[in-house]
Amino acid sequence: MNHRTDTSVTVIGLGLMGQALAGAFLKAGHPTTVWNRTASKADHLVAAGARLAPTVGDALKASSLTIICLTDYQAVYELLGAGEAELDGTMLVNLTSGTSAQARQAARWAAQRGARYLDGAIMAVPPAIGTAEAVILHSGPQADFEEHKPALDALGTVTYLGADHGLASLYDVAGLVMMWSILNAWLQGTALLRTAGVDAATYAPFARQVAAVVAGWLPGYAEQIDSGSFPAEVSALETDARAMEHLIEESEAVGVNAELPRLIKAMADRAIAAGHGGEQYPVLIGEFGRPHAG
Amino acid sequence: MNHRTDTSVTVIGLGLMGQALAGAFLKAGHPTTVWNRTASKADHLVAAGARLAPTVGDALKASSLTIICLTDYQAVYELLGAGEAELDGTMLVNLTSGTSAQARQAARWAAQRGARYLDGAIMAVPPAIGTAEAVILHSGPQADFEEHKPALDALGTVTYLGADHGLASLYDVAGLVMMWSILNAWLQGTALLRTAGVDAATYAPFARQVAAVVAGWLPGYAEQIDSGSFPAEVSALETDARAMEHLIEESEAVGVNAELPRLIKAMADRAIAAGHGGEQYPVLIGEFGRPHAG
Repeated sequence: MNHRTDTSVTVIGLGLMGQALAGAFLKAGHPTTVWNRTASKADHLVAAGARLAPTVGDALKASSLTIICLTDYQAVYELLGAGEAELDGTMLVNLTSGTSAQARQAARWAAQRGARYLDGAIMAVPPAIGTAEAVILHSGPQADFEEHKPALDALGTVTYLGADHGLASLYDVAGLVMMWSILNAWLQGTALLRTAGVDAATYAPFARQVAAVVAGWLPGYAEQIDSGSFPAEVSALETDARAMEHLIEESEAVGVNAELPRLIKAMADRAIAAGHGGEQYPVLIGEFGRPHAG
Repeated sequence: MNHRTDTSVTVIGLGLMGQALAGAFLKAGHPTTVWNRTASKADHLVAAGARLAPTVGDALKASSLTIICLTDYQAVYELLGAGEAELDGTMLVNLTSGTSAQARQAARWAAQRGARYLDGAIMAVPPAIGTAEAVILHSGPQADFEEHKPALDALGTVTYLGADHGLASLYDVAGLVMMWSILNAWLQGTALLRTAGVDAATYAPFARQVAAVVAGWLPGYAEQIDSGSFPAEVSALETDARAMEHLIEESEAVGVNAELPRLIKAMADRAIAAGHGGEQYPVLIGEFGRPHAG
């Protein structure tokens, strides 16, 4: 990573993640100011060279860039909206977890107080912060991101998504649903194979390979979604549905959980009932794109 | 692919997949006999050099290796158990779709009639047959597989899984649930991002990258399952559950489907309720490994 180390940085909120963020800035040589409601959480950071600000207002004034990492957006408003904090002229990067709507609202709130604002989402666990493995997503004004990227680079693989402040949160949850879905599919397959005495380590490389192959299809399938046309070039949804029935039958027959298989088939069945049985899998975007009443 | 082309091969069942299988054997230079209830489906294969057997019995006698690809296992029994077919001394590779229990039962049925039997599953669509992309799984006696692998190689990437005849079917459905899960997770993410005007092609490379990273974790996570110990080295399940709640909130807030997010959280919640909140994600194998009453 190529980053400037002369930029002063403030980190507000020293939970496990906030501590990791401040630690990464310190390690990269940035003059780092920290603040936390419970000041003792800053002890080891102070020992490592951080400055503990006496108030939030002081913490904001101390640096040209402030990273916020709190429990939720409500905590952000309570802390920074308390009156003692002067936001005018500050540059806030809010890495607090929340929804896209909360991020957009916070951006408006910050703008009303004269602060520049980027919203971010951390796709990493605290121990990974400061390594290239830690992907940190940002959205908001591009100029603000570009100006502060050299400092943010200390945190990991720093990515810019677009001007809409809600994007970091949306990409974050999209990444999470991919993560849990792969883990759950692997657990379903592992459960199926364990009924035949196959251990998890034997099955895992197979699952990994299938995942890699299928992931490679996504850019091509995306073209169908963007064009709104789903010709069955490879396979028709109604053919897939018959194989889904096999998956359910097999899961039930060997006595493992069948909820995931049943949800997979239920969504395909709805699209088939809506007349899309002769089209290709990505036509299911119609089902995923709207709430289900049932 | 390195395969012998002097082995005579019979293909019984000429649906789209059976036609593709016979075509691949012909293309690889194997003397190929075919049979189908509706003989006209063999016309273009005969034009390409196949021999159309007048009866199933004749088809079985014609070759040292017979591939069966019918609608379901019932069709296999009706056709090969009709009396006219002499199974004694034949080598059957049954690529008909079915469950692991059906495969094991068919293996016993074949053994009672003096036939050698491998069960198989095709992880490919018909147009891919004959290319390395077509993965074809086999299970049953290893010696039978090894003996016929040089001919089977004409069909694609031919894999042996083990002596248990049920393995091909189990690996097949395990691969399918991975495939649909990745596609569904990608559709969920695409649906979320489209609400912010992000097109599918923009999001797909991100989804692909996340999938590749997570797939890389599986071998390590498999060790936890095989050891039955799930220390929270990276993240505890109860921390994951809070992020799952964000995923549900975001999906509901932007008006997309939330069934997949809700199922993800429901399974984690059950494991947490069972006392596993401080353990790591693969502890969910306990939930996936048993039917859910609810």
